[in-house]
Amino acid sequence: MARRTLRSAGCAALLVVCFALPVFSAQKVIIDTDPGVDDAIAILFAFQVPELEILAFTSTFGNVETKLATLNSLRLVEMSGKHIPVAEGAVRPLYMKKLPSADFVHGQDGFGNVRLPAPTQRRVDQSAAELIVEIVKAHPGEVTLIALGPMTNIALALLLEPELPRYVQAVVAMGGVLHVTGNVSPVASANILNDPHAADIVLGTDWDVTLVPGDTTRQVRITDSFLESVRDGGGARGKFLHDMSLFYRDFYRSVGVTDGFYAHDPTAMAFVVDPGLFETEERATRVVTDGMAIGEVIAATERHWSQPGPWHDMPKAKITTTVDSERLLKLLEDALLSR
Amino acid sequence: MARRTLRSAGCAALLVVCFALPVFSAQKVIIDTDPGVDDAIAILFAFQVPELEILAFTSTFGNVETKLATLNSLRLVEMSGKHIPVAEGAVRPLYMKKLPSADFVHGQDGFGNVRLPAPTQRRVDQSAAELIVEIVKAHPGEVTLIALGPMTNIALALLLEPELPRYVQAVVAMGGVLHVTGNVSPVASANILNDPHAADIVLGTDWDVTLVPGDTTRQVRITDSFLESVRDGGGARGKFLHDMSLFYRDFYRSVGVTDGFYAHDPTAMAFVVDPGLFETEERATRVVTDGMAIGEVIAATERHWSQPGPWHDMPKAKITTTVDSERLLKLLEDALLSR
Repeated sequence: MARRTLRSAGCAALLVVCFALPVFSAQKVIIDTDPGVDDAIAILFAFQVPELEILAFTSTFGNVETKLATLNSLRLVEMSGKHIPVAEGAVRPLYMKKLPSADFVHGQDGFGNVRLPAPTQRRVDQSAAELIVEIVKAHPGEVTLIALGPMTNIALALLLEPELPRYVQAVVAMGGVLHVTGNVSPVASANILNDPHAADIVLGTDWDVTLVPGDTTRQVRITDSFLESVRDGGGARGKFLHDMSLFYRDFYRSVGVTDGFYAHDPTAMAFVVDPGLFETEERATRVVTDGMAIGEVIAATERHWSQPGPWHDMPKAKITTTVDSERLLKLLEDALLSR
Repeated sequence: MARRTLRSAGCAALLVVCFALPVFSAQKVIIDTDPGVDDAIAILFAFQVPELEILAFTSTFGNVETKLATLNSLRLVEMSGKHIPVAEGAVRPLYMKKLPSADFVHGQDGFGNVRLPAPTQRRVDQSAAELIVEIVKAHPGEVTLIALGPMTNIALALLLEPELPRYVQAVVAMGGVLHVTGNVSPVASANILNDPHAADIVLGTDWDVTLVPGDTTRQVRITDSFLESVRDGGGARGKFLHDMSLFYRDFYRSVGVTDGFYAHDPTAMAFVVDPGLFETEERATRVVTDGMAIGEVIAATERHWSQPGPWHDMPKAKITTTVDSERLLKLLEDALLSR
């Protein structure tokens, strides 16, 4: 009796503490990815920050073929020493002819030709879309989907489970160009052109979705001195990050980007870690799925969404505009240098 | 005999003078137009500057229907006291369904509802395209075509006379948006959307063609104090320009442009008068003719025109970027205030 009273009092005290103190709770995320050098940097960053709890990786095509994206995701998980499931995703776009992978940007192994050994972990049996639906429904309102590649798996999850938007907390996707020139056409970026139909579905769904376009990510450049700092102070992880990035850096140099390379995926990841680094706008956002402008993201303001036409009465997506790149790079470097 | 010698000596002297002195020769132009308030401002400006010799007006649809554009061109010619032929042009686009005219921008009479009397002059019998071909071939290498509206008549002239590019000196067209938002869709401006096929033909032809897009013209704003100066010092012409512009100004105010209205067509005209006010870039330039992005001008740099795709190996158009708007407005005001 005395013991039971004591236990009750202890529980009550614990409850008081629980409600009185602000409890830090990490943001649950699923990372959909085609690693890829900048994907890998973003993921190594995500492992290191207390703000994120990675529930799963799902693989897709783009920078590399899907099978290699699965293997590379497993390699990154092993490097982290964590136990995080990896599910294999779509091997081709919803509707379009698949485009070739970008091995001239990321190397044939997706990691700048550093040639890591095969992973020892295995992927789970479920498909990416199935795992996304399962995890999101197990944590209603708590999971953010981070799309670092084409949005095929997210679109498939929406097609599998039409109620998905009720369960997802937010979606953050990297891709598109608004005012800057695209990397695969004057108006299209690779992530969007690789599956324009999927992107049009995801950006046009009524949920909390943020697009981090090239206009934002090109404001964040990783320099040689950043790479060297991470190599020198970041242990095996830092050395891998440095070595893998040289191929990617050299690609950017070859197309005239000489003062560092663009940190596309790390910038999108940073939006989830600290959205306060960014400014966003609300836009009715559509993606062109055919013709000369295929893969273009067209983001309408009220002037055009209030008129009849493709943007009429659409749910609004958020689009990042400016970013505090200095603070973002500091956040990234500190994380990569931490134990 | 003595008389003949004298005459010969006179001719020889005249020849010496002709070759020894730099002779000012005005730029011959044909103005293709859908007046339209800003067209009218551009044309009143063109009448006043010694740099231009207007050989003809050709009418098109857009701001107003073609028949009204013809009448308004005749009204402007009469106002100038000059004898310049006006030919009626296409009443609809090459291929697309015709869009409604913009009477909510320019007034039902195209002149801000000032209601001028009917013109007494009559148009010529030839079509716009026929007159363009005839005049250009009569002055090979000397005529610049100025397109202030949709480019239908210019495209028709090219279809009538495939050798036209050999005879035309240059083409200057107002329209399109590159980095700013369009007025009729997020990516399209009215002049281009009114006939995207014609614009794609004209901008993709191998001749000296310059596009003056909204990105440039929105740098030039006509304020109330400009209008009042022209009204007070520009005689009957100045009063007409002021009165007609109020409706147009009020339209821009209604869409949030409050610090003056955009001088679209006057800016394009100023490019012909003094190209030194502008900077230009060379681009492989195509126009989207269907789908969500219809009417979009997509201008590729070498990165994309060197790759397979819609911009591959295209002739390059010039596109204006920045303009010295202060000097342009001074040029415009001085001309409109001159006798």
